[in-house]
Amino acid sequence: MKKHNFSAGPSILPQEVFEKAAQAVLNFNDSGLSLLEISHRSKDFVAVMDDARALVLELMGLTGKGYQAIFLGGGASLEFARIPYNLLKEGGKAAYLDTGTWAAAAIKEAKLFGETVVVASSKSDNYNNIPTGYTVPADADYFHCTSNNTIFGTQMQQFPDVNVPLVCDMSSDIFSRQLDFSKFGIIYAGAQKNMGPAGATLIVIKEELLGKTGRAIPAMLDYKQHVDKESMYNTPPVFAVYTSYLTLQWLKANGGIEGAEKKNNAKAELLYNEIDRNPLFVGTAKTDDRSKMNVCFLLKDEAHAEEFDKLWKAAGISGLPGHRSVGGYRASIYNAMPIESVQVLVNVMQELERSI
Amino acid sequence: MKKHNFSAGPSILPQEVFEKAAQAVLNFNDSGLSLLEISHRSKDFVAVMDDARALVLELMGLTGKGYQAIFLGGGASLEFARIPYNLLKEGGKAAYLDTGTWAAAAIKEAKLFGETVVVASSKSDNYNNIPTGYTVPADADYFHCTSNNTIFGTQMQQFPDVNVPLVCDMSSDIFSRQLDFSKFGIIYAGAQKNMGPAGATLIVIKEELLGKTGRAIPAMLDYKQHVDKESMYNTPPVFAVYTSYLTLQWLKANGGIEGAEKKNNAKAELLYNEIDRNPLFVGTAKTDDRSKMNVCFLLKDEAHAEEFDKLWKAAGISGLPGHRSVGGYRASIYNAMPIESVQVLVNVMQELERSI
Repeated sequence: MKKHNFSAGPSILPQEVFEKAAQAVLNFNDSGLSLLEISHRSKDFVAVMDDARALVLELMGLTGKGYQAIFLGGGASLEFARIPYNLLKEGGKAAYLDTGTWAAAAIKEAKLFGETVVVASSKSDNYNNIPTGYTVPADADYFHCTSNNTIFGTQMQQFPDVNVPLVCDMSSDIFSRQLDFSKFGIIYAGAQKNMGPAGATLIVIKEELLGKTGRAIPAMLDYKQHVDKESMYNTPPVFAVYTSYLTLQWLKANGGIEGAEKKNNAKAELLYNEIDRNPLFVGTAKTDDRSKMNVCFLLKDEAHAEEFDKLWKAAGISGLPGHRSVGGYRASIYNAMPIESVQVLVNVMQELERSI
Repeated sequence: MKKHNFSAGPSILPQEVFEKAAQAVLNFNDSGLSLLEISHRSKDFVAVMDDARALVLELMGLTGKGYQAIFLGGGASLEFARIPYNLLKEGGKAAYLDTGTWAAAAIKEAKLFGETVVVASSKSDNYNNIPTGYTVPADADYFHCTSNNTIFGTQMQQFPDVNVPLVCDMSSDIFSRQLDFSKFGIIYAGAQKNMGPAGATLIVIKEELLGKTGRAIPAMLDYKQHVDKESMYNTPPVFAVYTSYLTLQWLKANGGIEGAEKKNNAKAELLYNEIDRNPLFVGTAKTDDRSKMNVCFLLKDEAHAEEFDKLWKAAGISGLPGHRSVGGYRASIYNAMPIESVQVLVNVMQELERSI
């Protein structure tokens, strides 16, 4: 039976990516060798890395604009420390917007490196909205925000105009919508939502920002070292980079970010419309701040949970339970999720309504 | 044509591991979902992580002895910084043995954190030997060594008895030979030689050593956080951990470390005997310090290089050129390399001799 995978991450990728990745594990580029056993400095893998880095910039419209894309191991959580290490000057100041669990984790790390101003927080609302009306200190070394909050189902619909470098954790909505990416100084994202499997982090960096803190940075934590070595300072996470590359190629072949955005808008509209129409459900995020990637909702009456859970499981749906911080349900509808699967979920919600 | 892959890393893994890993990318545990799209907190993957961690300790004879095994992303190079962050006290002292490129890289990172004593170095010999007769300061916070030097083809045949925690980078010979692993405070290894694909690092830690430096450590760099969260502090490199787990299961089913050591001894003996017997070749490492993982050798007369290169390529051999620091040839004969492939290389060396 076909599964409809609404997992928040690691999460659905295109079926053709799974097939090509599996084939490469057996025999990479018809070399007679597995992708897993070749040198990362072999001609074939260096080409993958170079092409993947170029494709990221191309998809974002950043080619030739002073940006570099690198793929590192460790996970986006490691960037929470790398960002202040690389950007927060000794005696300087960082500014952060607190919109959820991951933003708060990033703030905690920055505090180890220097003064960290939280310009606004929606924590007291259990992060069900994106704060507005805040001011970013003009003397901050950078301003950090989280574009999409996977756990709470909120998403920044616009980004503030600031006169300091704008740093954004786009782990859960990268490549999902068109943005003026040249507004950002650093964009980073764990691969395991819209881009690939767990095990790689993409960092897109405006090169001129690096090397200015005066800190002695351990080599592996120094973006400049990784940029200078073209993302091959050490052995990269070969499989995760290759699979991300396959996904980026799929994205390009399917209309790029513009194409993805259209489909994502249609999927989100379909599901939010049902949540708002169906008397049994209620969304958890403030309407204006709703995420088009992670749709969080509750049953108004918990008594229907058993029946609802039975129905969606019988329909082949998986990964629907919400994060424990919010409860209820979370439908993650990343780039690779077909609208047909969203329709299956909507059908189940309507079936529940009819059965009550 | 069957390839004989002598690559230094990423490197050969058992064929059945490639097949099982490829299958899991298509359909993991018959779930109808790819290994790449399931939550790392799903029951099936938590079981993989737990079993893999337990299996590491079992294979090393460390079960119940106060050790924890964790799998992190980033690569062993990141441990060069994590080690001093976690073990080098403010105002303390670290001791290092300098036996090659990676040892030197580890020393460079330690110096950022405090006084770093290099107890001995073979750098002036282009690292063709393992220094002896050194003294480790009794007041060092730890002593760090590199068990096998991939680039230079040397290997520590014994480890010093020290009264400070013994920390060892075993990236290129882990699980290849029996050792009293309880002598070590921390053992770490990038997966991509004897254990799995690039993208995961194994760290085996004597738990009592952690949390004693008084340093404020960023969460992702703090071993204690990862141990406390059972290697799930953040999203782990799922595919690399799973494939490492498959390799560890293969190792266990094939006689464990004891079984691997016997085969590795036979392979190394076969190849070194030919290097010593064949008048055309010479080994680069001091005989007593020769590595059983990476066999480095030169042609005595470079004029034969063209013919030799033609012969080994025609025999289906790949990954044989030596690192630029040493030149010549390097045959990496990790656990998964069958002796039959080593015999193919020996045959080629004899064929060259006959052709001259």
